[in-house]
Parts: sequence; structure tokens; C-alpha cells
Amino acid sequence: VSPSVTGLPVVGMVGGGQLARMTHEAAGPLGLTLAVLVARPDDAAALVTPAVTVGAPDDPDAVARFAAGCDVLTFDHEHVPQHVLEGLRGPVRPGRSPLRLVQDKLLMRATLTEHGFPVPAWRRADSPQDVAEFAAGHGWPVVVKTPVGGYDGRGVWEVAGPAELPPAGWPLLVEERVGIERELAAVVARRPAGEVAAWPVVETVQQAGICVEVVAPAPGLCPSVADAAAAVARRIAEQFGVEGVLAVELFQAGDRLLVNELAMRPHNSAHWTIEGAVTSQFQQHLRAVLDWPLGDPSPTAPCTVMANVLGTPATRLADALPAVLGADPGARVHVYGKSPRPGRKLGHVTVCGPEVAETRARARRAARMLAGDGA
Amino acid sequence: VSPSVTGLPVVGMVGGGQLARMTHEAAGPLGLTLAVLVARPDDAAALVTPAVTVGAPDDPDAVARFAAGCDVLTFDHEHVPQHVLEGLRGPVRPGRSPLRLVQDKLLMRATLTEHGFPVPAWRRADSPQDVAEFAAGHGWPVVVKTPVGGYDGRGVWEVAGPAELPPAGWPLLVEERVGIERELAAVVARRPAGEVAAWPVVETVQQAGICVEVVAPAPGLCPSVADAAAAVARRIAEQFGVEGVLAVELFQAGDRLLVNELAMRPHNSAHWTIEGAVTSQFQQHLRAVLDWPLGDPSPTAPCTVMANVLGTPATRLADALPAVLGADPGARVHVYGKSPRPGRKLGHVTVCGPEVAETRARARRAARMLAGDGA
Repeated sequence: VSPSVTGLPVVGMVGGGQLARMTHEAAGPLGLTLAVLVARPDDAAALVTPAVTVGAPDDPDAVARFAAGCDVLTFDHEHVPQHVLEGLRGPVRPGRSPLRLVQDKLLMRATLTEHGFPVPAWRRADSPQDVAEFAAGHGWPVVVKTPVGGYDGRGVWEVAGPAELPPAGWPLLVEERVGIERELAAVVARRPAGEVAAWPVVETVQQAGICVEVVAPAPGLCPSVADAAAAVARRIAEQFGVEGVLAVELFQAGDRLLVNELAMRPHNSAHWTIEGAVTSQFQQHLRAVLDWPLGDPSPTAPCTVMANVLGTPATRLADALPAVLGADPGARVHVYGKSPRPGRKLGHVTVCGPEVAETRARARRAARMLAGDGA
Repeated sequence: VSPSVTGLPVVGMVGGGQLARMTHEAAGPLGLTLAVLVARPDDAAALVTPAVTVGAPDDPDAVARFAAGCDVLTFDHEHVPQHVLEGLRGPVRPGRSPLRLVQDKLLMRATLTEHGFPVPAWRRADSPQDVAEFAAGHGWPVVVKTPVGGYDGRGVWEVAGPAELPPAGWPLLVEERVGIERELAAVVARRPAGEVAAWPVVETVQQAGICVEVVAPAPGLCPSVADAAAAVARRIAEQFGVEGVLAVELFQAGDRLLVNELAMRPHNSAHWTIEGAVTSQFQQHLRAVLDWPLGDPSPTAPCTVMANVLGTPATRLADALPAVLGADPGARVHVYGKSPRPGRKLGHVTVCGPEVAETRARARRAARMLAGDGA
């Protein structure tokens, strides 16, 4: 990575998925170079930026060499082991200690509980008997999670009885199945100097554990619950010293809010901010990890809906894209440059509008057309 | 340039300035690869895209080799000679014939006049005597332009008398100095299939021939004049078969509109569309040159102001950028990665707001801070 003629910094991001790709798209206008450490040279981000290093995120030498060329290091996933991070000299965002929380769900649950944040009932299970004991108190079904490495519904199972335990190693995290009304996400950014900025709280819709739709702001959300959700995210960011974007996924049941998951990086629940907010989560993450002043997170439209494009066997992006653009000239399409596979996140569509129903229908329709999903 | 795994096309752009850079920023979300043919490896666009070829735009072999790797060829400037274009096989946008008009101001004036478009009084001058004859009829001062190669005020002189003729070769274009009330720009896009989309007509503010500010939509513009300006741009696009973005710079004096300049590529007068319109001029240009359906050009805010950042001897972008972001968290900053030089366009700032005065003040203030201009 060569220094820029403007003297503006180089931000290094470990990972080359769509989050890194969209961070590159946000880096250009700020005059920043986003360098990426990618596992494969055809990763989504590697196709669009010239500052590409190929290397494994768990290879201490590869990560250290990459980091040495960057002014600050950040991540588009949670898979850099702590022993690799320990060896690095420059600044690492969100910070080694907060990163630990998103690398180990048992530690995350224990730490949130210890600090009084609302979470579902849970315990560490080292055996089927531990799970059965927990279920005896909270009732079947229970939710079982691998503590490390899950994403997009992988590593999470709803278990109806003792015979259904997943073929995963121990320990596991076992939780009550919460009577969910809906899921929310509260996304904030925090810079090392302490400033925090919060986007409006959104509703997220999941199918089979994968986010398929986000509505901003969350429709019909009581202001006091919205404030409470935003306050939880802000307190988590401050309590644990998160540097960068923090997404807090929450279960809502009436006035009750429970923290489900944390992500300390740009997150699917805030893709809508690219068009729907004055400052996108990608630009905000860059500003935060550089310890620069944060941007205005205000929404730019009464309603913004983001719908994910999930691959199907019928996905033919090159044919579908012009058709979608023709069907809805106001749809904002994002394609990640990934090879299509059923269930894979290949892109998303954002629509801004005056009200929820039509905006949501337009986003869904465009995303389905792109996916080749006839439904 | 390697084909993408998604099968989406490669658009080739000759030129590596900020227009190519911002076109790259728009290509990513559509899953497109923007390949650039740049004169120097540190050109603004070459810093942000991996698909870089270094070569001169007037080198037939370099351009032909570059074009062979692209599905369609387009431009961020007008400096590719016709004989170079003649040798190319694939589609060239805006088209060889319309390109001629923006490569030769005498031909442009003659062609517009022939087709009845309103232009200032003009003539071709092959000698100082021709200029004097023209001035005898229209009065001094007159405006004198080199027919080829001018931009940002270069190649244009206001001449007060016969002793002041510029040290340029002949022929020259000589024009009446129009009693300008203000300058407008009408920007449209046209695709080969015929579809045309028009952004709102804007006011442009020039200093020493360089655009410094654009206000969208043009404040207080009478709807019938706005319609007339948009109609001129649409008719020029259709009459001459322009493919891609067409910017028409106009002089306004009351209800009178005169065509000043044409550009057949993304243009400074439409940078505001990145944040201020549903579809930016850069995405629209890509859609148009690919003959894809055009996007919605509607504005997203009541008022959007773009202010250019022009270099000064005091420009220190790396220091000024965080300061500007802190001073106005809602300012949208674009930095082009160019080395600072006095008078050089280094970036721009866009602000969206409810009304003109405050929005304009914010954009100006942020642009001046970035430039290091204490004023």
C-alpha cells in the first residue's frame, strides 16, 4: 500500500466480504485508502479495491505484515484469534478486549449479565444433562448455540427435546426460547475519544436465522422502547469501550427488550443507512476507527426498507439486474460481486419512501426479482 | 481485466480524473467493474480501482487494447482524437458523432445554430481583422475561445479591444459577451434505446471560469424557463444521439436562454446528484452507456448545494478533513486523492437542506475550510 499524495490515512480491514466492499465504497469520497486482507483473491472486496493482500486471518505473520502497512486495523468479521491480535503494534478497532465478547458467546452472555444488561435466561452446558437441567427450569424448546464461529443462523439450533441435540462439540450456550414479538436492532458508532452517534432503531426480519429485511425506523415502535433500545446500545459501547460500529440485535416482547447478539463492525441491519441516513454506517465506521468526528446519523426519508438478495437455484444476476432497474427506477440496488449459491447473501435493495407498506413491497419485489425468486 | 463471477459487464472509461473516480464509486453497488485508461498511475481514479491501464488517450494502440477488454467504452474527458475512435470495434458512448461536437467548439456552435438552438452571436475568426469586424457589429468586449482543448476557464478570454487578443493560434471562436443574469445547467441522460431522464435544472456559479458552486434546483427559477432549459437539453440529446450523460451549460437573462457549453459525460454541475437525487449522474451514466433502464432523477431534498474545493497555497487536506467533519456533521465531503495545487479542483462538499441560504452557507464554509481558505 503506497501512501496517498494527500497524506490521508490508510485503513486496513481484515476480511474481504461485502462489508469490506461497501467500506471501500465509503472510503473513496473521504480520500481514504481501504486496504483489505482477503482469504481469496476473488473475494467481494478484492474485486473493487487495488489495495489487496491475500492471507489467512489466523496467520500471525500475514496479519502483522498487513497491519504494518496500515494506520489503523479493523475487521469485517470476528475470526482473528486473540493471540494474533496480541502481536500487533498499531491501533486495533473495536479494540482487543471488546472483540473478545463477539468471539465467544459464552463470555458475551456472562459479561452482559454481570453488567446488568437484559439477556434471555442462559447457561453454559458441558453435557446433554446440563441442557436437560436448564430445560427442566425454562421448558422445552430451548435454543442452543456454539460459542464460537456462528453467523447467519449457522451454529444456532432450536431444540425441542433431549433427543434433538445438535452434533456440535461442548461447551454450548443454552438459552430460553424467548416469546418474540419481533426483532430490533440498535446500531451506534463510538470513537476512541468517546463520542457516540446512534441511528434510529430498526426492525429486522429473519428467515431461518438469516436477516431478510430491515425497516427503518422500526414501524410503530413506542418512543420509550426505542429510547431504551438505543440506550442499551450506547451503554454497551461505552461500558466495553467499543471503537467503531456496534450493532445490538434485540428481542422485543412488548416493553421488554433482551439483547440477542452483538456485532462490532458494519452490520446487515444498517445497510439501509447508505441511502437512508445522512451518514452511512460504512463512512461512520471509518470515521470512528480513525478517531475522527462522527457524522450525522439522521434519516433522510420517513421510511427506508432494505431487503437482502439471497441466492436461489434460479439466480441469474446479469439478466435480472437490468430488469429490476427497469421495473423500479427508484430502487437502490447493491450487488456484491459474489458467485451465486442458494441462500448466499448476494446483494441487497434499498427503497426510501413516505410510508412502510408500499416501500416494503417495492424493496421485497426488487430483491426477489434479483434473486430469481418467482414468488 | 478479468470477467466477474456474476457475468456483469466491464465498462471502460478513458481518463482517470475525479469523474472516473466517482464513476468507480457508482459502479461497485451495481456489481460492475469500471476499468480506467489513465495517463499516470497516480491519477485520481487509479488510486481506487484495481482495473487500471496506463496509456495515452491519443495512442491508437493503447486505446484499442484497452477497449478490447471492455464491453463498452466511455470517457471522462473529450481528448480522444476521432482517428483513434474510428479504429475501435465495440460500442463507444456518447457515440463518435456527438463526441465531435464537444471536441470542436466551432463545429458545436455551427451545428447548434443550424438546428435552431439558441446560442450567443458568434463567428469563426481566422485573423485579428475577423475579430474586429465581429466586434464592430456586436460591440467590445467580445469573448474569444480556442475551438479545441479548453476546460475550467482555460482557452477562454474576454477581450476588451483589438490590442488584447490572446496569444493563441487561429482559427478562434469569437462570441458576443452576453449580458448574463446567471448561469444554469440542464443535465440529462439518454440511453441508446431512446429513454431520456432529466435532473432538475440547477444554478451554477463560476469564478474566473471555474465552477465553484451549484444550487439544485436553481433558486426562484420560473417553471416555464426551467421547462425550456430542460427541453433544450433533451432536444440536443435526441437530435445528436447522445448516449450517456449530457450537461448543457446555459446563460439566463430573464426568459432568454442561450447554450454556452456542452459536456457529454458526468459533469461538475451534477455532482450534487450523489446525495441530492435518487439516482446519481455517475450511476445514470453507467446505466445509459450499457443501454440499461435509467434511474429516477428526482431530488431527495428541497435544496442541495455543492461547493467545489479549489486548492490554495494553504491547503492541508489531512488536517482540514477531520476539522471539517467536526464542524458540520451533516456535510458530505468528497476528496479526489489529487495532490494540492492552487486553483486545482481537489474535492467538493454537498449539503442537503430545507432552504437555500443556510444550505449554501454550510456548503461554502465546509469547502473553504477544506481548501485552507481563511476567507
